[in-house]
Amino acid sequence: MKAQILHNYDDDLKASRWLNYEDYPDPVLTKPSDVIVRIGGAGVCRTDLHVIEGIWRPHLDPTGDKLLPLILGHENAGWVEEVGSHVEGLKKGDPVIVYPKTSKGTSLASRRGQDMHADGTFPGLDANGGYAEALVTTARNIVALPKTLEPRDVAPYSVAGLTAYRAAKKATRHLLPGEYCVVIGAGGLGHIAIQVLRAMCASEIIVVDTSDVALQLAEECGADHLIKADGGEIEAVLSQTKGKGAEAVIDFVGTNGTTSKGLAMTRNAGSFYLVGYGEDVQIPALDLIACEKNIIGNLVGTWAELTELMELANRGMVNLETHEFKLKDANVALRSLHHGKIKGRAVLIP
Amino acid sequence: MKAQILHNYDDDLKASRWLNYEDYPDPVLTKPSDVIVRIGGAGVCRTDLHVIEGIWRPHLDPTGDKLLPLILGHENAGWVEEVGSHVEGLKKGDPVIVYPKTSKGTSLASRRGQDMHADGTFPGLDANGGYAEALVTTARNIVALPKTLEPRDVAPYSVAGLTAYRAAKKATRHLLPGEYCVVIGAGGLGHIAIQVLRAMCASEIIVVDTSDVALQLAEECGADHLIKADGGEIEAVLSQTKGKGAEAVIDFVGTNGTTSKGLAMTRNAGSFYLVGYGEDVQIPALDLIACEKNIIGNLVGTWAELTELMELANRGMVNLETHEFKLKDANVALRSLHHGKIKGRAVLIP
Amino acid sequence: MKAQILHNYDDDLKASRWLNYEDYPDPVLTKPSDVIVRIGGAGVCRTDLHVIEGIWRPHLDPTGDKLLPLILGHENAGWVEEVGSHVEGLKKGDPVIVYPKTSKGTSLASRRGQDMHADGTFPGLDANGGYAEALVTTARNIVALPKTLEPRDVAPYSVAGLTAYRAAKKATRHLLPGEYCVVIGAGGLGHIAIQVLRAMCASEIIVVDTSDVALQLAEECGADHLIKADGGEIEAVLSQTKGKGAEAVIDFVGTNGTTSKGLAMTRNAGSFYLVGYGEDVQIPALDLIACEKNIIGNLVGTWAELTELMELANRGMVNLETHEFKLKDANVALRSLHHGKIKGRAVLIP
Amino acid sequence: MKAQILHNYDDDLKASRWLNYEDYPDPVLTKPSDVIVRIGGAGVCRTDLHVIEGIWRPHLDPTGDKLLPLILGHENAGWVEEVGSHVEGLKKGDPVIVYPKTSKGTSLASRRGQDMHADGTFPGLDANGGYAEALVTTARNIVALPKTLEPRDVAPYSVAGLTAYRAAKKATRHLLPGEYCVVIGAGGLGHIAIQVLRAMCASEIIVVDTSDVALQLAEECGADHLIKADGGEIEAVLSQTKGKGAEAVIDFVGTNGTTSKGLAMTRNAGSFYLVGYGEDVQIPALDLIACEKNIIGNLVGTWAELTELMELANRGMVNLETHEFKLKDANVALRSLHHGKIKGRAVLIP
Repeated sequence: MKAQILHNYDDDLKASRWLNYEDYPDPVLTKPSDVIVRIGGAGVCRTDLHVIEGIWRPHLDPTGDKLLPLILGHENAGWVEEVGSHVEGLKKGDPVIVYPKTSKGTSLASRRGQDMHADGTFPGLDANGGYAEALVTTARNIVALPKTLEPRDVAPYSVAGLTAYRAAKKATRHLLPGEYCVVIGAGGLGHIAIQVLRAMCASEIIVVDTSDVALQLAEECGADHLIKADGGEIEAVLSQTKGKGAEAVIDFVGTNGTTSKGLAMTRNAGSFYLVGYGEDVQIPALDLIACEKNIIGNLVGTWAELTELMELANRGMVNLETHEFKLKDANVALRSLHHGKIKGRAVLIP
Repeated sequence: MKAQILHNYDDDLKASRWLNYEDYPDPVLTKPSDVIVRIGGAGVCRTDLHVIEGIWRPHLDPTGDKLLPLILGHENAGWVEEVGSHVEGLKKGDPVIVYPKTSKGTSLASRRGQDMHADGTFPGLDANGGYAEALVTTARNIVALPKTLEPRDVAPYSVAGLTAYRAAKKATRHLLPGEYCVVIGAGGLGHIAIQVLRAMCASEIIVVDTSDVALQLAEECGADHLIKADGGEIEAVLSQTKGKGAEAVIDFVGTNGTTSKGLAMTRNAGSFYLVGYGEDVQIPALDLIACEKNIIGNLVGTWAELTELMELANRGMVNLETHEFKLKDANVALRSLHHGKIKGRAVLIP
Repeated sequence: MKAQILHNYDDDLKASRWLNYEDYPDPVLTKPSDVIVRIGGAGVCRTDLHVIEGIWRPHLDPTGDKLLPLILGHENAGWVEEVGSHVEGLKKGDPVIVYPKTSKGTSLASRRGQDMHADGTFPGLDANGGYAEALVTTARNIVALPKTLEPRDVAPYSVAGLTAYRAAKKATRHLLPGEYCVVIGAGGLGHIAIQVLRAMCASEIIVVDTSDVALQLAEECGADHLIKADGGEIEAVLSQTKGKGAEAVIDFVGTNGTTSKGLAMTRNAGSFYLVGYGEDVQIPALDLIACEKNIIGNLVGTWAELTELMELANRGMVNLETHEFKLKDANVALRSLHHGKIKGRAVLIP
Repeated sequence: MKAQILHNYDDDLKASRWLNYEDYPDPVLTKPSDVIVRIGGAGVCRTDLHVIEGIWRPHLDPTGDKLLPLILGHENAGWVEEVGSHVEGLKKGDPVIVYPKTSKGTSLASRRGQDMHADGTFPGLDANGGYAEALVTTARNIVALPKTLEPRDVAPYSVAGLTAYRAAKKATRHLLPGEYCVVIGAGGLGHIAIQVLRAMCASEIIVVDTSDVALQLAEECGADHLIKADGGEIEAVLSQTKGKGAEAVIDFVGTNGTTSKGLAMTRNAGSFYLVGYGEDVQIPALDLIACEKNIIGNLVGTWAELTELMELANRGMVNLETHEFKLKDANVALRSLHHGKIKGRAVLIP
């Protein structure tokens, strides 16, 4: 098959081309529970750029470039191509979306439904991913798609969408009428989170972003209040929340000081949900205590949560704006993303 | 002042007139935390008919008709008229809605926010209520109204609305996308619950009622599926829920077999929320266990929940259809209700 | 192998012998995830008598005696004998306890950790169980035993213990210091629940039983108050709880009126947990609502909960009294149980 | 009456005497809900030293030394001396402990039971406290003592105990058998938390402290594992927890790097509870996300939680080691505390 392959890290993202489009052996079934998926769409994500830069090397590839060459692509959807002898209920041609974390399902974390906390691989990061014509995964990673949904339209939900969904869902479990939720960053993840909040709670949604275009998208997604991040965003949020701050703040940026600002926007006894990353979270212990605030980390989501998100998509309660590129043009898509030219999410298609 | 007073129980509701419109001493402040409210609206409720019938006598008046004469009216809103010496933050003319349960606030239940489980009175049932020109209550019972809301338009929220809100809110705390909620009975409480569910979760709402008019109202309130209760309603719900039943069923009727039907509509591991009453709940223990179902009782709500509901009303996320009658015409309103001629809720106004 | 086999139902349990001890084909691996367990202990349970009586026929065998002949035994522990080609991490000789519900693990219920709500079989009830020298199960049903625990000593934990654990654990999630938990029935399940409550919450434990021997066992297990069920048990519980009742009541009997008594012992806003069965639960809807009580069904438990219970056993925080019988003497064990002569739990050993 | 009064801040705690023992006007009832308490015991706390140092000035006294002169003492217990005209259920001589935060009870936070998040004063910090013969408080601040408990023995529970209880209780709501809880610091608060954990959950308790004496106290309180904080404490905790870390870590120190160490001891998907303060919490956002950890702030507790803690004390499930000093010797007690010579908690008595 054809695949887009990373052969070398590029620390400063200056290379003219990062991935090489080349022939690669077709994936094969090695276990009775394996499933081969023909790729219909593979999301292009900022994390791909971070992998190329090598930011994840200390975590995933600490002892040298042993992971390379690697097929990128962690947000995958397509159609079942072939199933192992032990797989039931799936047949060739079924449209599916691929849950990203691959694990055996036998750990306590998995048995409690928390597959993202089980040992295993994350194809596209530390195993071959979906920037290719096909991908081998396991039956436990398959979520069947409703008939209303096309693989190419939903691929980015598998990680970006799932991550936004889980963080927003956590907030909706405690948000009540009369309370507020701030969303920092209305980009690929943030604009999904706004729609999830709109669907699953009755709190007022305040969106903070540096970009007018993003704020406009936020409004279309159902935000109640838009705040331009121009240096006065903390005061603007406090003003909008009767001087108290918001019961929930979800930070999809995690750089340029958003974490300290987000904590300052959080009301006493409220929770700050962290999704974006890059900087350190830093706050005096006394402030956390005197205000009894919580800082909540968020990691992808569960298989069950991916099915929940697909239900929202199926009913039209969340929508995703995608821009399609051919698989062979993966470098163009990545470069566009790197230069901030993608609104919504880019998707590679066959 | 003028008031509508119950002098005698009427077991079979056959009397030509139940309440007497007469002069009654003005309410007075007796404690420093008391507040006198000039009534702007008093909801007319089926519970009033039950009080007149004497259904509540074993609970509230067990040793003879000591409660009578009694001013009915447990759903009250109006304007502050006079406050005790210890009351702060309220002044004459402030529009307010009255939380129904009166308690001292010192019990463990109250200190945990569960005022409906504290000892105290429930004006209109076991103390003088709001079918009058004024009512004495306490500062702890006052919820200030947002400017958008008029007392006459919101009075029924104080009990009917609050009860519907609390039951629906409990369900929304566990309902997820891809799950179902059945509402049995789209009357005064049910049509509020549908709106609350619509605002606070993303599950599909199935409404079951015997009345086409009620089902039409349910649709306007945001129901996804309408089922006429004609004997085949269990099968219809199962059919709509892939044969499994709903994760939550809220029964606002509680008579004519709705409790056993509601339990049959409840999915394994799901919850049946009971609000309406009249019949016995009866089910084999084995069925509850083998299906691990829950039966959840619901009693009014907390003061905080009344403020939450007022926020939903303030933002237009719940709306209440009311029909106004003059205070002097209370018997007309009650009779109309008794004969099923009230759509939405009747309200007595000055 | 040798096995104890049920060939005919016995409605009134009058037969001189219910099971036949005979040769039966050895279990074989049919799927790559299968595991064969050599039985070290198989719990003898009242449910076995119910299966023999045919109480479960309407649920499990509705179209005739198609389930028979059947090897009984749903509480199994032993050692791994042989594993399928796809099974990792288990080897011959490993001591294990068998989670009772067999399912594929692909359903939403399983992926949320709720295997007892997935489709599948329950060996000993609707598939061959462990009254035999060996049993075939799946890798997903295996819980490895800590070194401190012997299969013959723990087998009854797999269903009786797990069921008691789950119900008690649910109660401990809300029970607080100053609150009360009533346990109705200090038998095989009840005496485990008392120990779980003692380990996992700081509420006072009140045990109600008709038997002095059971009450003595309850005291040894950590009960704070013992009440003989002699007709005055409701008043005794109310007296012990300042007239209010208990925040949690767990009923392990479910017959002879314990459900209505248990509900009467439940405090307003409290929960009645149902585990035992036999009679109907019946209560006026008005009572459930006016007191805002909950009735909570309980079904076995999750795989993760079985590991939690094994941790409690491993640390000596729960102990189980067992009486051993040889496999060939299964009918003797069952008859002793039927005649109320087993204290604690009977276990069949090789 | 006599009182110990702070007239001047002492930035470096070098003064020979901080408080002045002098005559002060008796407290008087000014509102109908006021209560005067004759002090039986007043806890001496590190926060008193922080108040003397002026650490709290930016928060409590930002515009100059307007709070001074101030009677210190925020942990108070004693006997009712006099009650306002609106107070019911309390009479002279009743033994009581004083909930520390004084508020009107009308805010949404109070009505939800969260009095520590309501506006108001904290006597001993920003209003006159209990280093005196008497204190004026409100009926809402009174918790009646069981007969088993003496004011002088329980005074420190009102803040130190309550804070430890709330943090530990939060952890017990999710801790399960087979899981671990690390307590960093087995001092005045920590040794209470250990007892609370022991009473309310079945997880293994690992205590980390620099002091052998504290570790010995921890063992007496029920700790399962003791770790000397000598630089290798992170590895020691990981070793004790199968390399994974603990599901809950409670940090009662909050200085000298315990926050980063505590986060490193926290298992993926676990929670780090912060109680002690002094340093900044600092952690890469990526680490919080990749491990999905939570950081949970903790502030005193609710009135209901103080009653829960008194129940634990009443039943002997928590015990407090106290060292008594006469009120006139407050400076001696504070100096002993400052020099690390108090084991358990110091209490001032009449």
